[in-house]
Amino acid sequence: MNKAINRLLRNRVSFLTDTGPGEDIVISSRVRLARNLAGRVFPVAADQSELEKIGATVAAAVRDSGALGDDALTLPVNLLGEDDCEILFERRLVSRDLLARGLGAVLCCRADESAGVMVNEEDHLRIQSMQPGFQLREAWEKIDKLDSLLMTKLDFAFDEKYGFLTSCPTNVGTGMRASVMLHLPGLVMSNQIQSAIQAVSKLHLAVRGIFGEGTDNRGNLFQISNQSTLGESELQILARLESVIRQMIAHEKNARRLLLEKEQFALLDQVGRSYGLLRHAYRLSVDEALNLLSGLRLGVDLGMFSSVDIGTVNELFISINPAHLRKLAAGEEDIDVARAKLVRERLKK
Amino acid sequence: MNKAINRLLRNRVSFLTDTGPGEDIVISSRVRLARNLAGRVFPVAADQSELEKIGATVAAAVRDSGALGDDALTLPVNLLGEDDCEILFERRLVSRDLLARGLGAVLCCRADESAGVMVNEEDHLRIQSMQPGFQLREAWEKIDKLDSLLMTKLDFAFDEKYGFLTSCPTNVGTGMRASVMLHLPGLVMSNQIQSAIQAVSKLHLAVRGIFGEGTDNRGNLFQISNQSTLGESELQILARLESVIRQMIAHEKNARRLLLEKEQFALLDQVGRSYGLLRHAYRLSVDEALNLLSGLRLGVDLGMFSSVDIGTVNELFISINPAHLRKLAAGEEDIDVARAKLVRERLKK
Repeated sequence: MNKAINRLLRNRVSFLTDTGPGEDIVISSRVRLARNLAGRVFPVAADQSELEKIGATVAAAVRDSGALGDDALTLPVNLLGEDDCEILFERRLVSRDLLARGLGAVLCCRADESAGVMVNEEDHLRIQSMQPGFQLREAWEKIDKLDSLLMTKLDFAFDEKYGFLTSCPTNVGTGMRASVMLHLPGLVMSNQIQSAIQAVSKLHLAVRGIFGEGTDNRGNLFQISNQSTLGESELQILARLESVIRQMIAHEKNARRLLLEKEQFALLDQVGRSYGLLRHAYRLSVDEALNLLSGLRLGVDLGMFSSVDIGTVNELFISINPAHLRKLAAGEEDIDVARAKLVRERLKK
Repeated sequence: MNKAINRLLRNRVSFLTDTGPGEDIVISSRVRLARNLAGRVFPVAADQSELEKIGATVAAAVRDSGALGDDALTLPVNLLGEDDCEILFERRLVSRDLLARGLGAVLCCRADESAGVMVNEEDHLRIQSMQPGFQLREAWEKIDKLDSLLMTKLDFAFDEKYGFLTSCPTNVGTGMRASVMLHLPGLVMSNQIQSAIQAVSKLHLAVRGIFGEGTDNRGNLFQISNQSTLGESELQILARLESVIRQMIAHEKNARRLLLEKEQFALLDQVGRSYGLLRHAYRLSVDEALNLLSGLRLGVDLGMFSSVDIGTVNELFISINPAHLRKLAAGEEDIDVARAKLVRERLKK
């Protein structure tokens, strides 16, 4: 186990545990920028030696710029063990693509995990900024500063007509992808989620599960992000996304209100059962735990559990995943037993 | 609501809440005697006026004998409301047959419900005695005294060759049916219950669910009783039944031990989930509640819940039934909501 990973595990992930506006429905806001070095081959086409050189150049520039703070972490992927990589993935600091790159791939990140740079993912740089709650503007302002600081050290590929050049045409232009993670149990319980997703998709926004495409609606968590990066300014893209998110929040609040009015006991029952099982079960699969945490989170939002802190629930969404468990509950043979034990202990506090 | 029924509802049913030997597996022991008045038509053949006369005669004799104590209750079935009747049935003080008889049918019982006489059920008298835990001998001794006291006031139909004469040939002889209610979650969880039931059936003993035939294994509760009443003395019948019950107890203990050894977390999980749901659900059906109470009872037996009293669990097996709930949780519209509320409150204490 890498020492830096150990440091990360001691973090109470700030973008999950700090309070933020709209936190009853929006868990976190995230903005990332795709950037590439001028005159250098894109990672997808670069050979091993080129990837290593770029990795070293960018990591040094990030460090020298001071963009990620004095205690920033620099983690070359090829030096990490399998579980270290999985922990970074479960904490949403790296993508599967970065991990697959291997040699030359590097994660640079702030010690508090609120910002980072993936080096040699699909692009030379994928700069990320995360904020708790519904704070896309704040995430944008922070990443804009990071971008400016990095530009003092690196020359980014930029075209007057197209904007920032990227490996994949869907990122050309601003290179920006903004996303929010929403907790939508009300829309799911009232069977409105599919029509809501369809409506959002028609607006050229993408809807995905917590760990990306194919993870569906585990824990009733959904990410909504912009699809296009070209033809609009960053602020226009953010404004359009924010407007849709505000509508989703209103829909979800309305669904919860109607459920409380018309199916009060079905709602209370789901919440109560979720809490009862999380507090007392001795075996939990990831999928069941995510769904129960969703029920508990709804109960906390509704004021049913004054003793449970919303940050604890958010953090459990991360720490119940397999690699975290293998580290946090070392020695326990059965992963489902370890998961139930961790949850019981965290909720007892 | 009959005032006497209200009095019963205030009882902590002694045969359920007092501690008794072997109470971790045997919930209660019960003996009943079938008796008929000499020279009178059996209830099944009697007309209305005859039934009324017999009802009055027997009720007066029971009262005058003092067999059921000074504060005994006398409840003519035709004066009871529908829910009153159901409450008596749920408390196992009357049978469906007695309730169906109507005019002339009477329940006489001790104020603490530990003994009673059904008048004009299938026979003129069905005398019952109930004890907590595994105490067939004690139940027998008590009912033998009741029987003797009643004999000072009533002339029972008795044949030197056949013994006591009864409406149905299966009761002729001793007229005795002895039964115990067993809680067998270990045999159920380890899939041994069917073979255990088959083995018991071959010994001319009957196995039934908590509320008689057709109620299967709700709550993992099983009644075992003697089938034949002829050709053996009461003490021989009891000795044979006791021997089988002791074997069942040994089987159940063995099953629990093996589950704890080999499937510890499956067992803990079932118990923990049962407790968590009972403490926090907002809607419970009878069947789910019975099964969860079974899980909780197992947990109490295993020493997992020091704060939960076994008598409280036993009593809930009765009070979660519909008629009790309609009375205990009056005003609550949804019976499943009322049931969950009652259970939450009882387990909180």
